[in-house]
Amino acid sequence: MGAANASVHKHMDKPYTATSRPVIALLTDFGYRDAYAGLMKGVILSHCGAAQILDLTHGVPPQDVLGGALQLLGAAPFCPAGTVFVAVVDPGVGGARRPICIASGGSYFVGPDNGLLWPAACSQGTPQAFHLDRPQFWLPQTSATFHGRDIFSPVAGRLAAGQSPHDLGTAISDPVTLDIPRPTRIADHLAGEIVQGEIIYIDHFGNAVTNFTRADLEHPEPGTLMFSTRHQRVTGPATHYGAVPEGAPAVVLGSFGYYEIAVNRGSAAEALGLQRGTEVMVSPAAPAND
Amino acid sequence: MGAANASVHKHMDKPYTATSRPVIALLTDFGYRDAYAGLMKGVILSHCGAAQILDLTHGVPPQDVLGGALQLLGAAPFCPAGTVFVAVVDPGVGGARRPICIASGGSYFVGPDNGLLWPAACSQGTPQAFHLDRPQFWLPQTSATFHGRDIFSPVAGRLAAGQSPHDLGTAISDPVTLDIPRPTRIADHLAGEIVQGEIIYIDHFGNAVTNFTRADLEHPEPGTLMFSTRHQRVTGPATHYGAVPEGAPAVVLGSFGYYEIAVNRGSAAEALGLQRGTEVMVSPAAPAND
Amino acid sequence: MGAANASVHKHMDKPYTATSRPVIALLTDFGYRDAYAGLMKGVILSHCGAAQILDLTHGVPPQDVLGGALQLLGAAPFCPAGTVFVAVVDPGVGGARRPICIASGGSYFVGPDNGLLWPAACSQGTPQAFHLDRPQFWLPQTSATFHGRDIFSPVAGRLAAGQSPHDLGTAISDPVTLDIPRPTRIADHLAGEIVQGEIIYIDHFGNAVTNFTRADLEHPEPGTLMFSTRHQRVTGPATHYGAVPEGAPAVVLGSFGYYEIAVNRGSAAEALGLQRGTEVMVSPAAPAND
Repeated sequence: MGAANASVHKHMDKPYTATSRPVIALLTDFGYRDAYAGLMKGVILSHCGAAQILDLTHGVPPQDVLGGALQLLGAAPFCPAGTVFVAVVDPGVGGARRPICIASGGSYFVGPDNGLLWPAACSQGTPQAFHLDRPQFWLPQTSATFHGRDIFSPVAGRLAAGQSPHDLGTAISDPVTLDIPRPTRIADHLAGEIVQGEIIYIDHFGNAVTNFTRADLEHPEPGTLMFSTRHQRVTGPATHYGAVPEGAPAVVLGSFGYYEIAVNRGSAAEALGLQRGTEVMVSPAAPAND
Repeated sequence: MGAANASVHKHMDKPYTATSRPVIALLTDFGYRDAYAGLMKGVILSHCGAAQILDLTHGVPPQDVLGGALQLLGAAPFCPAGTVFVAVVDPGVGGARRPICIASGGSYFVGPDNGLLWPAACSQGTPQAFHLDRPQFWLPQTSATFHGRDIFSPVAGRLAAGQSPHDLGTAISDPVTLDIPRPTRIADHLAGEIVQGEIIYIDHFGNAVTNFTRADLEHPEPGTLMFSTRHQRVTGPATHYGAVPEGAPAVVLGSFGYYEIAVNRGSAAEALGLQRGTEVMVSPAAPAND
Repeated sequence: MGAANASVHKHMDKPYTATSRPVIALLTDFGYRDAYAGLMKGVILSHCGAAQILDLTHGVPPQDVLGGALQLLGAAPFCPAGTVFVAVVDPGVGGARRPICIASGGSYFVGPDNGLLWPAACSQGTPQAFHLDRPQFWLPQTSATFHGRDIFSPVAGRLAAGQSPHDLGTAISDPVTLDIPRPTRIADHLAGEIVQGEIIYIDHFGNAVTNFTRADLEHPEPGTLMFSTRHQRVTGPATHYGAVPEGAPAVVLGSFGYYEIAVNRGSAAEALGLQRGTEVMVSPAAPAND
């Protein structure tokens, strides 16, 4: 599977949406040991009893804002129109960072102003951000450690219940932005044009998601490219994981629109020593002589 | 606790069922780090806003089709009548394996045609399988890596919304089957009849689930049998975990109808070195002299 | 974040509650590998199709009754009025321990009679306990290993559907109680009064939750106290995690009302070697000369 790319996300069949209850989708780094995510759900249901809560994941690595942003970007296009997203990866909680809501394309994104919400909000339309600066819409007491429960959840419940973001905060023009790293093209006098990218995400299966989209690689035919890291070379793309023998590496177009380095029925991250930030170069599979 | 056995599953109080919303139950090996399972929920709610989604587990070990099949078999009898089950443990995604739906006993089972759905579907009635071969009912774009999102979820949403499986696919007579391993009886000139089985599942608590049912062992009285692996012998069955001292091994009838080797307030898998496939022999606790 | 303290939990905005469906909140040590928690949800929905199920957590460490009790205590005030809580950390399942329901403050707490439910039930009002001794309200067959599925879930479903606990069990006056450890004050001829407490919980982020509330420490100003373990001294409290440099330790008032020892953007448990039971002494930050 893989991470997210906005340009390929227009395939969702939104006209079929017939949600009778407002959907609130949660994404956090709270993990599964504690009841932190559960507390958010309790607060949400206390403010909007009709809400349909959808757990996207609570397994974002602790304080990994980029990883959370990628997951949210990948999830947004597949949730019903009008979903209220609440995302919390928030190492700056209690400090100067602002609590915000971003309205975009009919959906809402609620969370910390640290870039986490930005890619997903941009993928859904033209983002309009609000500083959540009105404590009368929060829990009566707020902590300095858990704004997910004390601020974001009551605000999300109110949005799901129909309240306007203009009531809940003040419009701002300077939300913190965050860009998913993009590949670059470099000329090489031996190999011709090379595209240089990187691993931006390792998933549960050990698939190593690159930041190359189909467009970045000019819609390549199977087997026409060489994907190289410092230690490996994999010819690709393959049509699917099983197109190579069990245990062999393959490059497949992941479900979110990025190519990913995989091992058929294994973990590419483990087998090939890949991690986020690993540099990946793409060149023609055969020497470029034309 | 333990894995599943169809023959003991008729105790569920189905007449009490008064579900006002269609239930869709999910079981995958997607884990909890990524939003993959969350994406499926988004697509389901986009196609059937009234659906009540029930997470069975997303913690099946990656690509463990038998483990997933056991879990699904154990869960099916305890879900409301008419539940749509979506199960995804799918190492062959994107290749030749078919996407299928199996109708059985008023419930539906949607997922890959690799045996995963088979034991549970058989436990609920007479299975009728359909090849999901009609892309107009899928997401407009489908990937080669994530049929859970692109095919199974929209189909499940449509089934929950009342559409017939006859609309969504073509009836087939040859779905892939999968059998839970069964114990065998062997005669031993010293010990009399011995039943030979194996560990088929290790659960979260480290309980080692065998494939012996009560019927397989002729409804034994407590303490009348010897359960032997290559390295241990445990007299049993015990009435419950706490019937032996803390830290001691016991054999108890697990919640799904199989005997399991447990350690009171500990992990049998760790303490006794048990794993799936470990052979277990059952013989009378006292030498058989009659 | 942190664990729970009843005295600070009255801030929840219960009047906003407008839940149209009965809420059933689950907390167990079943983990996420198996479908055990999922089975409970299936049984609940079979008995109360209108129920809104809320997963608090299934990640309580196996058989950790105190840890589960702390989590439940922390969660209860943030769930809608009238919530039915089902909590299962139950090493004594199948033995002499009773299945119980405790009614308190309009909510219900269902689970084993081992203290797990007690702190949370006390925090919500005056607890009235019932021994669940009427098998006609359970599943037709019950196992000795999984009362969460066989007894607690059908009882919870019936409570959510409006049945009285007086129907489902017999009132008892002797439920097992459990007290969260409290700090003690000790006089020291050198340092003046010292408060002696301990670490009662380590959370997902590695924050080490003490059992000191604000009242225990007389509402201290920032930086006025010294928190000492055998190996570390941390001046505090700090206003929030980010008030100290990245990687530095801080003491902050956690979200549940206890002070916790944290490391800014790191794990205090790992960095400082803290675990449950570690003794913590609090004394004035400057020598007490008055």
